[in-house]
Amino acid sequence: MRVILVGFGVVGRSFAELVESEARKLERDYGLRPRIVAAVDHLGAAVAEDGLDVKTVLESKKKSGTMEGLGQQYSAGKSALDVIKEVECEVVVESTPTELTSGEPGLGHVRAALKEGRHVICTNKGPLAIAMPALMELANHNKVLLKFSGTVGGGTPVLDFAKKCLEGSKIRSISGILNGTSNFILSKMTSEGVTMQAALAEAQRLGYAEADPTYDIGGFDTACKLVITSNYVLGTSLSIKDVRIKGITEISKKDIDEAKSKGSVIKLIGRVEKNASVQPQEIPATHPLNVSGTFNAISFDTYPAGEITLVGKGAGGMETASSVLRDLIEIRRAFAR
Amino acid sequence: MRVILVGFGVVGRSFAELVESEARKLERDYGLRPRIVAAVDHLGAAVAEDGLDVKTVLESKKKSGTMEGLGQQYSAGKSALDVIKEVECEVVVESTPTELTSGEPGLGHVRAALKEGRHVICTNKGPLAIAMPALMELANHNKVLLKFSGTVGGGTPVLDFAKKCLEGSKIRSISGILNGTSNFILSKMTSEGVTMQAALAEAQRLGYAEADPTYDIGGFDTACKLVITSNYVLGTSLSIKDVRIKGITEISKKDIDEAKSKGSVIKLIGRVEKNASVQPQEIPATHPLNVSGTFNAISFDTYPAGEITLVGKGAGGMETASSVLRDLIEIRRAFAR
Repeated sequence: MRVILVGFGVVGRSFAELVESEARKLERDYGLRPRIVAAVDHLGAAVAEDGLDVKTVLESKKKSGTMEGLGQQYSAGKSALDVIKEVECEVVVESTPTELTSGEPGLGHVRAALKEGRHVICTNKGPLAIAMPALMELANHNKVLLKFSGTVGGGTPVLDFAKKCLEGSKIRSISGILNGTSNFILSKMTSEGVTMQAALAEAQRLGYAEADPTYDIGGFDTACKLVITSNYVLGTSLSIKDVRIKGITEISKKDIDEAKSKGSVIKLIGRVEKNASVQPQEIPATHPLNVSGTFNAISFDTYPAGEITLVGKGAGGMETASSVLRDLIEIRRAFAR
Repeated sequence: MRVILVGFGVVGRSFAELVESEARKLERDYGLRPRIVAAVDHLGAAVAEDGLDVKTVLESKKKSGTMEGLGQQYSAGKSALDVIKEVECEVVVESTPTELTSGEPGLGHVRAALKEGRHVICTNKGPLAIAMPALMELANHNKVLLKFSGTVGGGTPVLDFAKKCLEGSKIRSISGILNGTSNFILSKMTSEGVTMQAALAEAQRLGYAEADPTYDIGGFDTACKLVITSNYVLGTSLSIKDVRIKGITEISKKDIDEAKSKGSVIKLIGRVEKNASVQPQEIPATHPLNVSGTFNAISFDTYPAGEITLVGKGAGGMETASSVLRDLIEIRRAFAR
């Protein structure tokens, strides 16, 4: 199976490593032999129809920040759109950074790949948060699959779980702690009594939060994941514009302490029932959604099985790469010849 | 699809109700029209080849404790084995009580049904804890399915989750809180500082614990569920004899307090890595397995996705019935004509 990697950051590189280290298992258990025929980052593209030498690509990227160590296989300045059009493949993995105004450049990449009749595995939340219903339709029209397990829960199979394991149950609502950075900050404020500023600084020091933390603590990352989950699991047609979003920036030590005195904790919860919203909410400390640190958790209120909660790491390069691999296995299975 | 219910206690009755109330959805979404052609309890059997009138059966059972309200369709003293041999059906649902010395009468029912070429859905843990590898072989040999989602986690799809959602991941170990009664008692001792005796009495008062609570607090129920999970998910061939079992009866208030002072809690944990064991263990209070009340939780330590935990109600008639229904849908799908 020929794969093009569009975006070669932590997720793309982890996926390349994973495919390399698990090669034998993938062939034995799933008859799957992924071959990475191109890798593209914002500086250029490496292309090899017989498959790139993954070790060389990773070493070059590590040493110089580019893939120029590949010599003639590398073309500086070559764009992802050109590669998607020119290079034969079965699957395009899109893992460029999330952008929420236009969804670009990811949205253009996904569209182009689907139009070329390629299956797409997308870990970039932007294109889906903005245009998921249209993209699903485009995939259907071109008789290919658009998969995106890695967009929600990192390596924790949140979307698969809801789709494959809750059959015959009615899902009444979905509530989730879907952003590790916000949860780290709120957990720290709760367990150590520190201020928002101190907890945020600690999150930045540990690499959990960006220099501009708005995307995480403003609730936008949670909203993206909520949109994707709701559309996939409940069949809604939401975009991020349909979500009422309130982040955690106004949460004070006093709010945290007040909740504590009632046996509760404050968490940033994305919730969809009739409407979709993201906001800080008090939940009982004993509730399964009360997970600590950077954990993510998602609860499905089902009938008749009751409330079912899935907890796991919500991010991480290798973790997210494992979701990409699951998607690839599923594409292989659906299109086995 | 013709179904025989062997065992007509809480689970059997809830399943009958569920099939009735969800009839339209089952036909529309899955092309599934379950017809209950016989129901057997320890007093006798009701048989109707065109399908029993579920409402009448339930009313009769409620009023008199027997199914005699069905008149000629009812035969007092007729045994499950006779019904399994005489009545045509596609699926036998076995939900008689768990027994761990011989596995009977459930083991005989399951064997007979498989030999007759019927698919079996078993919510009785006894036959599986004692003879799961042999039963799986018997099912394969007869080209039918033996399903048992309801034996672990009640309505929480623990087994399905591991099988369907962790593909491509390596499961290094499984740890679970699999018995709601024990967890209720330990949670109560932790949160309210009461003694084991007081917590047990409260559990009995609320109907969470039996008059003889050995099966639950002695760790045997947890061991059954561990055996079934390990065999199904990890491909082991365990029986309950292979599990080192220690219950919670010796846990004192002092143990609980000591754990608390270290930021930990004591939980009854079933665990399989190289060996299988059930014993009280200290875990950090912030660990996702630290669920309160009668909740069940199970953690899969996976590579590369990390630790993934599923939390839900571990019991309940309607909840377990929803697992039986999921199994039925899967049988239907596997054998759709």
